[in-house]
Amino acid sequence: MLNVLFSAQPERWDEYRAPLTNAFAKAGLEVDLAQSHTPADVDYIIFAPNGPVTDFSPYTKTKAIMSLWAGVETVVDNATLTQPLCRLVDDSLTNGMVEWVVGHTLRHHLGMDAHITKQDGTWDNFIYPPIAAHRPVTILGIGALGAACGQALHALGFPVTGWSRRAKDIPNIRCLHGDDGLRTALTGAQIVILLLPQTPQTTNILTGDTLALMAKGSSVINPGRGPLIDDAALLAALDSGHIAHATLDVFRIEPLPPQDPYWAHPQVTVTPHIASSTRPETAAEVIVENISRGEAGKPFRYLVDRGRGY
Amino acid sequence: MLNVLFSAQPERWDEYRAPLTNAFAKAGLEVDLAQSHTPADVDYIIFAPNGPVTDFSPYTKTKAIMSLWAGVETVVDNATLTQPLCRLVDDSLTNGMVEWVVGHTLRHHLGMDAHITKQDGTWDNFIYPPIAAHRPVTILGIGALGAACGQALHALGFPVTGWSRRAKDIPNIRCLHGDDGLRTALTGAQIVILLLPQTPQTTNILTGDTLALMAKGSSVINPGRGPLIDDAALLAALDSGHIAHATLDVFRIEPLPPQDPYWAHPQVTVTPHIASSTRPETAAEVIVENISRGEAGKPFRYLVDRGRGY
Repeated sequence: MLNVLFSAQPERWDEYRAPLTNAFAKAGLEVDLAQSHTPADVDYIIFAPNGPVTDFSPYTKTKAIMSLWAGVETVVDNATLTQPLCRLVDDSLTNGMVEWVVGHTLRHHLGMDAHITKQDGTWDNFIYPPIAAHRPVTILGIGALGAACGQALHALGFPVTGWSRRAKDIPNIRCLHGDDGLRTALTGAQIVILLLPQTPQTTNILTGDTLALMAKGSSVINPGRGPLIDDAALLAALDSGHIAHATLDVFRIEPLPPQDPYWAHPQVTVTPHIASSTRPETAAEVIVENISRGEAGKPFRYLVDRGRGY
Repeated sequence: MLNVLFSAQPERWDEYRAPLTNAFAKAGLEVDLAQSHTPADVDYIIFAPNGPVTDFSPYTKTKAIMSLWAGVETVVDNATLTQPLCRLVDDSLTNGMVEWVVGHTLRHHLGMDAHITKQDGTWDNFIYPPIAAHRPVTILGIGALGAACGQALHALGFPVTGWSRRAKDIPNIRCLHGDDGLRTALTGAQIVILLLPQTPQTTNILTGDTLALMAKGSSVINPGRGPLIDDAALLAALDSGHIAHATLDVFRIEPLPPQDPYWAHPQVTVTPHIASSTRPETAAEVIVENISRGEAGKPFRYLVDRGRGY
């Protein structure tokens, strides 16, 4: 019987309890999974930085700390932490981003909202969307996430342009870079997806000047970082009708304050930073697989190098 | 010189005349394309069920009827029809259907409607969808359209089960068939997509008994044919909450009458038979290529099996 301590926010316990229990059972491990255990009896800690455990020194027998977060910068320097620490590395994060981006791109492409919100008995089938081949999509940021989204959109028939600061070469994506490339990438784009990292160079990359390059009636989808958009410029472009719709998952301030104009704007859809979230089911599988490795005497995966910091 | 009769609604003539004329010229066929010809002189009929031709018996020399519609259920049982009948199989029709099916599958999968309709300032990011790999999708009908949708959903990570009356073997799709296979295909399915042809065997294939096999809280997406669903049974399953949502593009009566309960039902999205619209340019090319095959002595493509009904 392994004693596994779950140390995270109470809401996370509700989310993770069943997936972890199922994953332990599937792995054939007998486990007492709980939110509290006598510290000296704990074999493993499943850990988030905002949970109750802050002092690791009483956990004398603990074989490893399994982080629920990909980023460990808030715990790696904890002086009481002498046990092995494993980051969460979950491939399903990329898959989740692709699902969200492809879903909202198709939603805008097909004009779904008109049907979802206006079920008034009017049968109007005389306006078709163009086929995907006639709907140019531009992705700003073609790292791992942007490239995966680009491939999925290409497979559905969309002509995909990708832009990055430095030159890249990715199959099925028209790759552009640099300042001139940015203007070319945005010119005539009907759907623009933001997946850039947040740096001084990418802050306000969508502003009045660059939004004006996009096709009239086009859409902006931002699952990247809030500061990529000049919010006042986007609101002005929405009000003028140049941009028909924006679906925004990330914001300068999160949670987005209730009084923020994005919430009430009829052409804006706010989603609460969910485009790519750690899913309890897959995270539980990753963590349990790692505990199984430890119990089988194999080295842990995703072990943090304390010196390097990640 | 071939005499080709165009028999469809007058609006269709305006749409199709130029694309057909261009396609015939490109194929090197000399054609007299018209909305009326002496029946005994007609080589081919380009046909829609709501056009003037209803009695095929005077068309004694006609080599084939080329349907402008993918579905042929309203003509296949016409007792006067002795000529070969070809369905319209148009790749761009397939692409359009894939876009619509993938879009609405992702919409249900991601729970988009909650965000689209409730922009009330509440930042609630504690409910995630499962990843696609944990969302079993079942497609009833894995012909050209169903198989293409299945491949696209597989590429996004969904486990896809397909069902057909007769055994099929399609990569990336768990193929089931027959009555037992139908029950297995529906059991535990979270999203069910209907792409079957309409035949006596497929009418009311989703009824109280089969809907009960689906997972609680699952969704039905029907871009196939209205009569595939027992409407009273679906409404009952929606009211009980067993089925969470239905997105319906096709109906027993179209346009769907304004007083139909589907319009007002909060768990139903009606779309006006737009899932896959034939685009004249591509349809004209497909039909002309098939006529060219016939003139070259090759077998017609997409020939309807009258016994089977599609």
